[in-house]
Amino acid sequence: MKLGFIGLGHMGRAMATRLLEAGHEVTVYNRSRSKAEALRTRGARVADRVADACEVDAVITMVADDAAIESIVFGADGVLAHLPRGSIHVSSSSISVAMARRLDQAHERSSQGLVAAPVLGRPEAAEAGKLFVLAAGPHGRLVRVEPVFAAIGQRTFEVSDRPELALLVKLSCNFLTASVIEAVGEAMALVEKSGLDPHRYLEIVTSTLFGAPAYKTYGELIAERHFEPAEFAASLGEKDIRLVLEAAESLRVPMPVASLLRDRFLSLLARFGDQLDWSALGGLAARDAGLERR
Amino acid sequence: MKLGFIGLGHMGRAMATRLLEAGHEVTVYNRSRSKAEALRTRGARVADRVADACEVDAVITMVADDAAIESIVFGADGVLAHLPRGSIHVSSSSISVAMARRLDQAHERSSQGLVAAPVLGRPEAAEAGKLFVLAAGPHGRLVRVEPVFAAIGQRTFEVSDRPELALLVKLSCNFLTASVIEAVGEAMALVEKSGLDPHRYLEIVTSTLFGAPAYKTYGELIAERHFEPAEFAASLGEKDIRLVLEAAESLRVPMPVASLLRDRFLSLLARFGDQLDWSALGGLAARDAGLERR
Amino acid sequence: MKLGFIGLGHMGRAMATRLLEAGHEVTVYNRSRSKAEALRTRGARVADRVADACEVDAVITMVADDAAIESIVFGADGVLAHLPRGSIHVSSSSISVAMARRLDQAHERSSQGLVAAPVLGRPEAAEAGKLFVLAAGPHGRLVRVEPVFAAIGQRTFEVSDRPELALLVKLSCNFLTASVIEAVGEAMALVEKSGLDPHRYLEIVTSTLFGAPAYKTYGELIAERHFEPAEFAASLGEKDIRLVLEAAESLRVPMPVASLLRDRFLSLLARFGDQLDWSALGGLAARDAGLERR
Amino acid sequence: MKLGFIGLGHMGRAMATRLLEAGHEVTVYNRSRSKAEALRTRGARVADRVADACEVDAVITMVADDAAIESIVFGADGVLAHLPRGSIHVSSSSISVAMARRLDQAHERSSQGLVAAPVLGRPEAAEAGKLFVLAAGPHGRLVRVEPVFAAIGQRTFEVSDRPELALLVKLSCNFLTASVIEAVGEAMALVEKSGLDPHRYLEIVTSTLFGAPAYKTYGELIAERHFEPAEFAASLGEKDIRLVLEAAESLRVPMPVASLLRDRFLSLLARFGDQLDWSALGGLAARDAGLERR
Repeated sequence: MKLGFIGLGHMGRAMATRLLEAGHEVTVYNRSRSKAEALRTRGARVADRVADACEVDAVITMVADDAAIESIVFGADGVLAHLPRGSIHVSSSSISVAMARRLDQAHERSSQGLVAAPVLGRPEAAEAGKLFVLAAGPHGRLVRVEPVFAAIGQRTFEVSDRPELALLVKLSCNFLTASVIEAVGEAMALVEKSGLDPHRYLEIVTSTLFGAPAYKTYGELIAERHFEPAEFAASLGEKDIRLVLEAAESLRVPMPVASLLRDRFLSLLARFGDQLDWSALGGLAARDAGLERR
Repeated sequence: MKLGFIGLGHMGRAMATRLLEAGHEVTVYNRSRSKAEALRTRGARVADRVADACEVDAVITMVADDAAIESIVFGADGVLAHLPRGSIHVSSSSISVAMARRLDQAHERSSQGLVAAPVLGRPEAAEAGKLFVLAAGPHGRLVRVEPVFAAIGQRTFEVSDRPELALLVKLSCNFLTASVIEAVGEAMALVEKSGLDPHRYLEIVTSTLFGAPAYKTYGELIAERHFEPAEFAASLGEKDIRLVLEAAESLRVPMPVASLLRDRFLSLLARFGDQLDWSALGGLAARDAGLERR
Repeated sequence: MKLGFIGLGHMGRAMATRLLEAGHEVTVYNRSRSKAEALRTRGARVADRVADACEVDAVITMVADDAAIESIVFGADGVLAHLPRGSIHVSSSSISVAMARRLDQAHERSSQGLVAAPVLGRPEAAEAGKLFVLAAGPHGRLVRVEPVFAAIGQRTFEVSDRPELALLVKLSCNFLTASVIEAVGEAMALVEKSGLDPHRYLEIVTSTLFGAPAYKTYGELIAERHFEPAEFAASLGEKDIRLVLEAAESLRVPMPVASLLRDRFLSLLARFGDQLDWSALGGLAARDAGLERR
Repeated sequence: MKLGFIGLGHMGRAMATRLLEAGHEVTVYNRSRSKAEALRTRGARVADRVADACEVDAVITMVADDAAIESIVFGADGVLAHLPRGSIHVSSSSISVAMARRLDQAHERSSQGLVAAPVLGRPEAAEAGKLFVLAAGPHGRLVRVEPVFAAIGQRTFEVSDRPELALLVKLSCNFLTASVIEAVGEAMALVEKSGLDPHRYLEIVTSTLFGAPAYKTYGELIAERHFEPAEFAASLGEKDIRLVLEAAESLRVPMPVASLLRDRFLSLLARFGDQLDWSALGGLAARDAGLERR
């Protein structure tokens, strides 16, 4: 397919590379051009402006947040103004549910089509084409961009014909993970203050009822107080919990654990700054129990 | 071994049966005698009084709570007064950390030995000898009752030489499970009110990041609103969270998720009574979101 | 002074009437014109468009929320485009801190001046000129609109030279009041379920430590379950708590009581709809304790 | 009246002194005898043992907690064994609701009578006879000890004929006060981090809606970070919130604000130790917002 790709951070670069390797014709754009140039040797064309990446069958966007998507899509030079009628915008960024709805309506009015396709997985998974793709949009539209998903993911879930629901699922997964981090952090603070070795505790817990990777991965990081460098920054975790709460508020769904997580993230960021991984959330309970300095 | 077994509820009966099948000489006692008589055909001796189950190498207790253990152990007819010097009390009940410590000290003074050995698993696992045993006490003492553990469990974890820490681990596991129930309940209320099918959501979530049994089991129960009959009653869940909080308070460890769970359990019990399974905790978020009648 | 007044709800109408009575020359505008016409007999001029209310020394706005202020101020026909250079916009609406900042910057660029002047008090107080005015902006600018404050309020507090801080104070007052409603509701649920008459309880509490009006007023409403009709709608209470949390998030201040209040308001709205007064928040604890039907 | 008085801390000494000044014949007992001897010059007889203070019409107890009341009342030398039939035990300590019920039943069986009479007020108020007395018990019994209340208090509230309900009211007052401390602490952290002077803020808030003493007193302490020495220790505040939660749990009343307060007190004690006043609860929000060192 003839594709545009906008946003070449860790995840975006890996995804664009996969698309090039799969034989697609990809024009890439990034705000700081050097990241785009780096893909030229892989066969990418480099766009000078967003508009130059839009003369395609489908343009994939993978940027940081609502503000970034706003500037890329809605500006005079943006996707909305330059994507041909009938072409598709595949939005993979973790944006808000409200923004996904707004994108959908705007593309509809411009006779373009939106597919929301946020992904689950770390950059390593993206490089290996092992992401999970949470795709939402009208079925026929999803079928048309299936080659894109095939290149980047190990499996695609067709969530719904309403694009914004893919975001809801994606954000809820981050909520569930954060709630594991917090609960494990509290349990380990209790255990540690009682005098039991937290590694021993973790071994028991993950050998019995909680064998899932989240418990092992985050439990280990918490036991080791290993919260830097950030793989997924605490500030991004806070943002995603906020987006969950915004969606929940507009639907009038009280989510007390999510509210608690938001306050905990704010406390983490206010007390220890922005450089920490979101797993540091799991170290707050020990701090509040007076267990340590950091 | 020559064993006593006190407390023949679902779990206790299954465990005592396993011990009989393994060839141990077991004298059983239960407050309502009929449950004890039912084991006579399996080869058990039936004790008329607690004291009659104490002329043994080790007596195992598996009762409901601190009050039950208090009456069984500390009365004139109780374990403390009648267990021979040098014999061992294996306490498998989900009692409080403070009670475990009190038992330990009392047995110490009476030249007996306490082993705390709460278990993880449902009655089916107990019948199949597939429990996980969380054993704590001095190493030599644990070795002496290893045949007991071999008969009832698939694996024994030596938690610590301090008996009460086995309780802390056991209670913390129930805390972690309850936090999964609550978090999944909140996520599913959000998803359901947005119009996405909760079964579809659950399939995605458990096929990607949350493959652990707790997510599948409780997610399914929550999606189906299938909260009766109780396998593990909500009131017992509430009790265990309370015991976690008591232990945490005595160690001065704030556990905000545990506090939230306690309030949610109280609301569940106050509004819907005692007959529900603890998975019904996961249905509260939908109720609070105005989603349904029950 | 030559004044414009935009937004003639309960509060706005009372405030505009006070200004007319004080002898000011007031041009009024309201989206539904009939409310504006009703003030003609009091001496008001009626504007056809927002722009027509802006040829003044100062224009006062008293509208529902950020969205209303956005359409009134930033449109082609809006305040920003039509208020003369050097004139003042007195914003009395309960808008967000962020919107106050945005207004301030926009007026600065247009060589106009913003004064934020949210008020404390009910419509009755407004009619009697007994509001408390929380005024913020450069001192000289506040002095210029002092005649406006003198007409509507019993006392003006000069909060700060930064307009948005007046909003922060106003919103925090609503947060403190909501926290009283919730805490009293919890205490009264406890007391009532114990069998003690809640009126008796309330009499004791307000005769000793808690004589402040908020305790008496809301305590009585809670004891009576008297939550309709709404004087201050629960949905507005929810909105103000949300604005507090937004301001707190941007400053990275965790506010766990505010988070809890937000969830409680959402539960109230989701379960019982929009017609209730915000005092109904104080009835939730009794509901969650299984005490009653409504 | 012929009275016994047990427990001569700050409050107890002041109350006993008032009773002596009112002309009652008072035998005092305190665990550390020196505090009892100090009252001899005021006319008190000094008892060597608890039993010696019980040959009276009524014995008043004013001790720290359930454990203290347990040892004073239920021991072989205790009140229960030595108070004459028909005499009254006036319990003024802040004990648990459950303990009050237990005392009531025990005295009933011994043909004595319990009156629960916790008080509101600081030691200064006790010295001046300005306490509020929350009295509960059968009406006729309350009438008999009215002279005691007249000597120590400015006003007596007859709460109920069930003694334990006086404790419920007393504990709930401390809950309401703690919730004021927390809410004001959160609001002031927000305001302070925004750059507004907290004293200015406090002046506005207490001059308008929140004129009650609790807001002024604790607001000032929070603004000044003046948390030592403790007038009412944080650990006692934590104890009272725990007693509220215990009573609420036994009645199945979820109290989310109380749960939050308990966690906050635990965090305060774990991080900063036992020497702080309970007003320090109001400084936690600023800490969690990264505002300061202490």
